Amino acid sequence: MIGIFDSGVGGLTVYKEIAKALPNEDIIYLGDTKQFPYGNKSKETIIELTKKNIEFLISKNVDIIVIACGTATSQALEEVKQNYNIPIIGIIQPTINELEKDLNTENIGVIATTGTIRSNSWEKEIKKVLPSTNVINKACPLLAQMAEEGWTTNEIAKLTIKEYLKVFENKSIQKLILGCTHYPLFKEIIREELGDAVEIINTGENVAEYLKNIIKTSIDGKGKHEFYLTDLETEFLRVAKNLLEEEIELKKA
Amino acid sequence: MIGIFDSGVGGLTVYKEIAKALPNEDIIYLGDTKQFPYGNKSKETIIELTKKNIEFLISKNVDIIVIACGTATSQALEEVKQNYNIPIIGIIQPTINELEKDLNTENIGVIATTGTIRSNSWEKEIKKVLPSTNVINKACPLLAQMAEEGWTTNEIAKLTIKEYLKVFENKSIQKLILGCTHYPLFKEIIREELGDAVEIINTGENVAEYLKNIIKTSIDGKGKHEFYLTDLETEFLRVAKNLLEEEIELKKA
Repeated sequence: MIGIFDSGVGGLTVYKEIAKALPNEDIIYLGDTKQFPYGNKSKETIIELTKKNIEFLISKNVDIIVIACGTATSQALEEVKQNYNIPIIGIIQPTINELEKDLNTENIGVIATTGTIRSNSWEKEIKKVLPSTNVINKACPLLAQMAEEGWTTNEIAKLTIKEYLKVFENKSIQKLILGCTHYPLFKEIIREELGDAVEIINTGENVAEYLKNIIKTSIDGKGKHEFYLTDLETEFLRVAKNLLEEEIELKKA
Repeated sequence: MIGIFDSGVGGLTVYKEIAKALPNEDIIYLGDTKQFPYGNKSKETIIELTKKNIEFLISKNVDIIVIACGTATSQALEEVKQNYNIPIIGIIQPTINELEKDLNTENIGVIATTGTIRSNSWEKEIKKVLPSTNVINKACPLLAQMAEEGWTTNEIAKLTIKEYLKVFENKSIQKLILGCTHYPLFKEIIREELGDAVEIINTGENVAEYLKNIIKTSIDGKGKHEFYLTDLETEFLRVAKNLLEEEIELKKA
């Protein structure tokens, strides 16, 4: 059984890819909506919240944990990994494994929360495998909140994306990493803004690919999927329905 | 000396009114930018952060503390007031004192953060003095963050305000309370959206009026004003300059 957590609805973009790649696996999803947003909280707070989420998922008997949150991956994964006897993966490494295959990448853009950008995790990890690639970072503090509101295709979202992506103009980026799992919810309008030449990297796809390689599932039938939230007062259901194209049932964590 | 704190730049709208009303007074401003935003944190967290801010201001020898933050006022003022031997005022009561004078108010709108709206503090306090007034509440989770980004007059801000204020259409509100101190930064576009018939209530003006009545200053000359932030990495200076029309110097708290 796979445990996935995020601060809110963003991790569902990772869940969606995992469910597609491993349809037989049971999955438990935890959205820490009570503590949302993670994006501008301190590193210590993020570590504390990450541990709490991991312990909740362990109590549900998962076999592996996916930190489907860019902020928690960049600020807490290294620190918490040693504390638990269970594999824990984040959203950065599986994407780095993919980036590594293309040594001709000159310019990569990264958009993420303030906390992730400040940690410089993406740039540090990219430089390890592609030392001469130029990394252009941009914090987008409003986007995760906007996604939680369900504003991912309206005019406000479009103008906000336009404003944030201005920094990449004339920078000839070949790839743009969506370093926060909320951002694939804006993929359509990001695509419109960037045009077709730029590869938009949804980290969830790489996480799913990575899991597919390490989990040799022998289970038949469709996996059972459960969704827990720490606070039910959100737009979660509406956003989930749009993204997953099916109704899900929520439980209080 | 007056101590003022907020989660970020919003409390400057209160500071501005106090500085205008009491130009001779020394003022210390604290923006808890490291923990911004307060709007969707839990009540316990808000109480803890409020205490920390109060203790910082007490260490600077202030004589009175103004909680220039709607979320901290609504969630923590009652709880922390008893803990300190210093007068502490929030942004709600001074405004209630003003509202009380107009018994003919049929419909009042309140916009604020998710935390403030969830606490229902405004409605409870309004009903104590105007029991038959109808209160229409609307949480605006994106606005404080947008103000911190300095997006208070652009097209994104305009559309966001339009979207949030839709709830007041055909509700015949006579007054709209800006229940978060960041919101007066959007006053121009809120005015455009609502038209001239609706009174827009900037709680900072009422706080300043209240302080003017209790502080009988005997000091000559212009007061000395200091500004502290818990985290300097923000758009604070730019927003402050636009609002205050002067350069300020920031110190690390």
